Amino acid sequence: MAHNVAILGASGYTGAELIRLISQHPNIEITALGAERKAGMQMADVFPHLRHLSLPTLCTIDEIDFSQIDLCFCALPHKTSQQVIANLPSDLKIVDLSADFRLRDPAEYEKWYGNAHAALAQQGEAVYGLTEFYRSEITSARLVAGTGCNAATGQFALRPLISAGVIDLDEIILDMKCAVSGAGRALKENLLHAELSEGYNAYALGSTHRHLGEFDQEFSLIAGRPVKVQFTPHLLPVNRGILATTYVKGDAVDIHATFAAAYREEPFIEVLPFGTAPSTHDVRGSNFVHIGVAADRVAGRATVFAALDNLTKGSSGQALQNANLMLGEDETAGLMMAPLFP
Amino acid sequence: MAHNVAILGASGYTGAELIRLISQHPNIEITALGAERKAGMQMADVFPHLRHLSLPTLCTIDEIDFSQIDLCFCALPHKTSQQVIANLPSDLKIVDLSADFRLRDPAEYEKWYGNAHAALAQQGEAVYGLTEFYRSEITSARLVAGTGCNAATGQFALRPLISAGVIDLDEIILDMKCAVSGAGRALKENLLHAELSEGYNAYALGSTHRHLGEFDQEFSLIAGRPVKVQFTPHLLPVNRGILATTYVKGDAVDIHATFAAAYREEPFIEVLPFGTAPSTHDVRGSNFVHIGVAADRVAGRATVFAALDNLTKGSSGQALQNANLMLGEDETAGLMMAPLFP
Amino acid sequence: MAHNVAILGASGYTGAELIRLISQHPNIEITALGAERKAGMQMADVFPHLRHLSLPTLCTIDEIDFSQIDLCFCALPHKTSQQVIANLPSDLKIVDLSADFRLRDPAEYEKWYGNAHAALAQQGEAVYGLTEFYRSEITSARLVAGTGCNAATGQFALRPLISAGVIDLDEIILDMKCAVSGAGRALKENLLHAELSEGYNAYALGSTHRHLGEFDQEFSLIAGRPVKVQFTPHLLPVNRGILATTYVKGDAVDIHATFAAAYREEPFIEVLPFGTAPSTHDVRGSNFVHIGVAADRVAGRATVFAALDNLTKGSSGQALQNANLMLGEDETAGLMMAPLFP
Amino acid sequence: MAHNVAILGASGYTGAELIRLISQHPNIEITALGAERKAGMQMADVFPHLRHLSLPTLCTIDEIDFSQIDLCFCALPHKTSQQVIANLPSDLKIVDLSADFRLRDPAEYEKWYGNAHAALAQQGEAVYGLTEFYRSEITSARLVAGTGCNAATGQFALRPLISAGVIDLDEIILDMKCAVSGAGRALKENLLHAELSEGYNAYALGSTHRHLGEFDQEFSLIAGRPVKVQFTPHLLPVNRGILATTYVKGDAVDIHATFAAAYREEPFIEVLPFGTAPSTHDVRGSNFVHIGVAADRVAGRATVFAALDNLTKGSSGQALQNANLMLGEDETAGLMMAPLFP
Repeated sequence: MAHNVAILGASGYTGAELIRLISQHPNIEITALGAERKAGMQMADVFPHLRHLSLPTLCTIDEIDFSQIDLCFCALPHKTSQQVIANLPSDLKIVDLSADFRLRDPAEYEKWYGNAHAALAQQGEAVYGLTEFYRSEITSARLVAGTGCNAATGQFALRPLISAGVIDLDEIILDMKCAVSGAGRALKENLLHAELSEGYNAYALGSTHRHLGEFDQEFSLIAGRPVKVQFTPHLLPVNRGILATTYVKGDAVDIHATFAAAYREEPFIEVLPFGTAPSTHDVRGSNFVHIGVAADRVAGRATVFAALDNLTKGSSGQALQNANLMLGEDETAGLMMAPLFP
Repeated sequence: MAHNVAILGASGYTGAELIRLISQHPNIEITALGAERKAGMQMADVFPHLRHLSLPTLCTIDEIDFSQIDLCFCALPHKTSQQVIANLPSDLKIVDLSADFRLRDPAEYEKWYGNAHAALAQQGEAVYGLTEFYRSEITSARLVAGTGCNAATGQFALRPLISAGVIDLDEIILDMKCAVSGAGRALKENLLHAELSEGYNAYALGSTHRHLGEFDQEFSLIAGRPVKVQFTPHLLPVNRGILATTYVKGDAVDIHATFAAAYREEPFIEVLPFGTAPSTHDVRGSNFVHIGVAADRVAGRATVFAALDNLTKGSSGQALQNANLMLGEDETAGLMMAPLFP
Repeated sequence: MAHNVAILGASGYTGAELIRLISQHPNIEITALGAERKAGMQMADVFPHLRHLSLPTLCTIDEIDFSQIDLCFCALPHKTSQQVIANLPSDLKIVDLSADFRLRDPAEYEKWYGNAHAALAQQGEAVYGLTEFYRSEITSARLVAGTGCNAATGQFALRPLISAGVIDLDEIILDMKCAVSGAGRALKENLLHAELSEGYNAYALGSTHRHLGEFDQEFSLIAGRPVKVQFTPHLLPVNRGILATTYVKGDAVDIHATFAAAYREEPFIEVLPFGTAPSTHDVRGSNFVHIGVAADRVAGRATVFAALDNLTKGSSGQALQNANLMLGEDETAGLMMAPLFP
Repeated sequence: MAHNVAILGASGYTGAELIRLISQHPNIEITALGAERKAGMQMADVFPHLRHLSLPTLCTIDEIDFSQIDLCFCALPHKTSQQVIANLPSDLKIVDLSADFRLRDPAEYEKWYGNAHAALAQQGEAVYGLTEFYRSEITSARLVAGTGCNAATGQFALRPLISAGVIDLDEIILDMKCAVSGAGRALKENLLHAELSEGYNAYALGSTHRHLGEFDQEFSLIAGRPVKVQFTPHLLPVNRGILATTYVKGDAVDIHATFAAAYREEPFIEVLPFGTAPSTHDVRGSNFVHIGVAADRVAGRATVFAALDNLTKGSSGQALQNANLMLGEDETAGLMMAPLFP
């Protein structure tokens, strides 16, 4: 018996990625597709790569009968998402892909996003959606907040190490290399092919990227004391993929063993042999995470790598994984497709 | 009940693509992976993007017990393939992805490939593997010859028109734009990223590309008289995708109607609205073909476009589609994944 | 003694390319840089790749004292350009890079661009700026109209053949492959890296691209009777480069000889050995054009290729070449830099 | 009066880049081009982008009359270069672009490169070729050893800081993002377009890259005590450009002021305003280096960025800059071309 889902924000990349994934899910049916500005259009005209699918016509949120919906994916911009979710039925299961419900402390939210939160009640009940670490909470949650794609990548590289106490908490550097689809379908000069291809640069210098709010919240929670990582993202001329290169102080062999133990049962996380570098090439279009560990020639220092696809495991794949838990489906349903290479 | 298959040539791109596709097939199990030079290795080391799968260790062909195999995919280089297939059990079902069994006339084979054919018996029984046009023959075939990727693209753009007699057979121009994976994993200077990215050029000038052998054979067969198209391929800095831009003389509206009728029931072929250009972006990683038709300002002339993914519909996807028919499976099994965009 | 020039539209790609080229010119100094919306900014902030140069602050057109200017480059959008030029001093030498003065017949202009021309007097005196074919007129011109980048490419591939009468004028097909910078710095979804990279498609189907106005005007003028080519442009995931693949009816050896004779003395046009395909890789960032010719297997048919860099030879390099003639400088001054490869 | 130069290794990328640069030099003439395996060929056939130049036919080294050569560029592979240079006239001025003469200590050379040095006499007289820091030694040198491209980038980002004592010498992390042309024209699977484009990964994990030999030598020399940085290079899908992201402990404002003072008079080094990220887009094809500095939110920590073009400033541009000094030419001759953007 299929579950009926709605996707709000269907004309963006994460919305389209959800449709791509759900098209392979045995038990989920897309009943409504919300896209305010493109209401009335067919998906085949907005995203021609989906034209082989039978999909509902795009509509406004007001036109959706949520009483027929088992779960709603919100792939809307932040700020918009909280306003919309505040007005959705209070018993509707929701997976939100925006930044709006990731931070538990409203003051932290306001600090990083610059505005007071407009849906405090919902924020209070939201569960942080990093599946592998919040599985039981997500299973029983009504509202799950999808993580930032950079935030997910960094946490896969660091959470087990912080939990196990095998690295120095005051000396963590996250050098992140990010694909352009993480910026969404925004019309900005620096996202044009002519400006982006064939080069790269850092942005959000000095640890000012908003995903730091998530790192601070989660790492401090695990450690039981404040943890402040250094984090510099770089924009790279590829469409999908995040690679976190993490410089830590600790014993590399212990670190590798810690990962092996922590992720042994995880269906989507592959810990590579010691000394092997993961590549974003090897996870493209999939829900997998590849983890690598190497010792540095300077004793007591290690480099940890995590690679994933920002649109899949970093966003829509994670969202479907969470929805599977919330709907009582197999956690991996619709998500076991192999990466696309080359 | 699963069918057991072997893949020979598992360390190339089409071999890896077969594994990617079969990993989502409900009823096919990969029992043996042949790769002469990499025998003894694990696929995780040859293609790390497949490391999440449980796959047999690579082995030599001699090590495979074909009595346990229901169907064998040969993803070997041409010339090698005919030698191998000549020595495989004569009742083994085979889908060959090489060029070796595409041309029915041994003289034509020798003309285009430069050597006498070494497996004439097998060549005689081979069925040309363009599924949509040889469906019944393939269903009962023992040996199916996968088409060239360019050849498939051009035929999707032209076969219905030649059959219906709506275009001038002496004035057909095929300008083809081809992704680099069509050249395989060959170590050639012009395939290096530094040499290929950020530019493009034609090759095989003057209608000398080997896939012309297939065009000549098939188009002449349909027309009942010799048809010689002009065909110029171009190498483009992308990994997957072929776009055929076909210049023909005929009425564009008739042409569009001819496609609509011919492909109405085809699960993988989408005929776009009149005047719409298909894009390789919209078929990447999928088994779909997008067809477009436009009228030119010069009366009586039309442009026909066909776009597909050379590794999927142009090669391994086609191969699995054929294998499904040969094994009595649903033709679309394992092949309905949506394209990857962006 | 240096010539003082102004560049209007300095914040676009062709404006920046002019600055790049002029920075190497021995006798031209940039005295004013107009950019209405970015007036007051430094070029280092608009185009950081030019930050090593001492350049005037961006200003509005009204702020420029044209009495001190020897020649003005207008790198403005079409429609805007005609309005601006109508109000510039009537004795100011101007090289216009827009589409506004390319078509001599106001009715043709209106047909292709959709609006009545607003500077008919200036249109009447404008000289078409394809240097190699209008050299003497350009030398004595006051106002030169830069050609379309596709129009330039197609004309380099066809003008000598039409002049020499060696091809069938009713059977000319231009399949053009175009880099994205030809679309300028426009914020459009299809120009985003995420949407453009890794794929391609045709646009302006059915010979509807505006550059056809130039082909019609020029080819008909040479032929002394109407000539209507078929022209389909394709958008490719590269930043610079146009490749014209031209299908013609004529003797390929005659065609090659015609090019060799026509371009023998041209400093920027290289006719490749018979049967050789030019590549856009080999002209990137330069003012060179590479021409190739091949015979088809179908007798009496040939393929002609022309490759150039749309921003250099197709636009700003051509503009500087014309300015050199108008200012009495060596035609090649500032323009002999080698292409950038890889 | 022109200087005559020879280029050995003219069929590789750095050889071609030297020719590109020298073609714009007012006083240098290329008299001989050595390329053992391609001897007898024309450059137009090896590198068609150089076909507009009048260049000598490729020849073997034995065929070159070095008595007519004022300076010889050796763009040969390492190991080969030392063998060749050992046999060149002992009074011939040489700029070597290989790794063979960068390390002063033969034991260090053997440690990083795995073989005993075969030209110890020449090694003893070689001057390290980082122009901005060895200007006077280079001016009077006979043999100059070009630096590694990564080594140059890292040193531009760190030397002034180590000299000035404004950073902690035991806590230096160099996260390097490298374009593929740095690997040369080598035929390796991971350098193929199909394998490299659309993704990235680290390599030489654990600070094992050979350019560390240069960092160790130079940084320890400046500091007067051993300095061992952590260095992880990443291979990115672009053709030109290196970005060093350097994590240091020190006061960011002091660091920025230190750069501003150190590089004030340098013609090729641009220190960006505080808090600005340089981009490899803005130095492509040029000899410029862009330096950026940002403070981290963690007090006392800073991020330093350096961007350059590995083939130009990181290799052949540096070589020409050094040759200019050795020949008494203006240091910037032939090197002031603006970067190519887009």
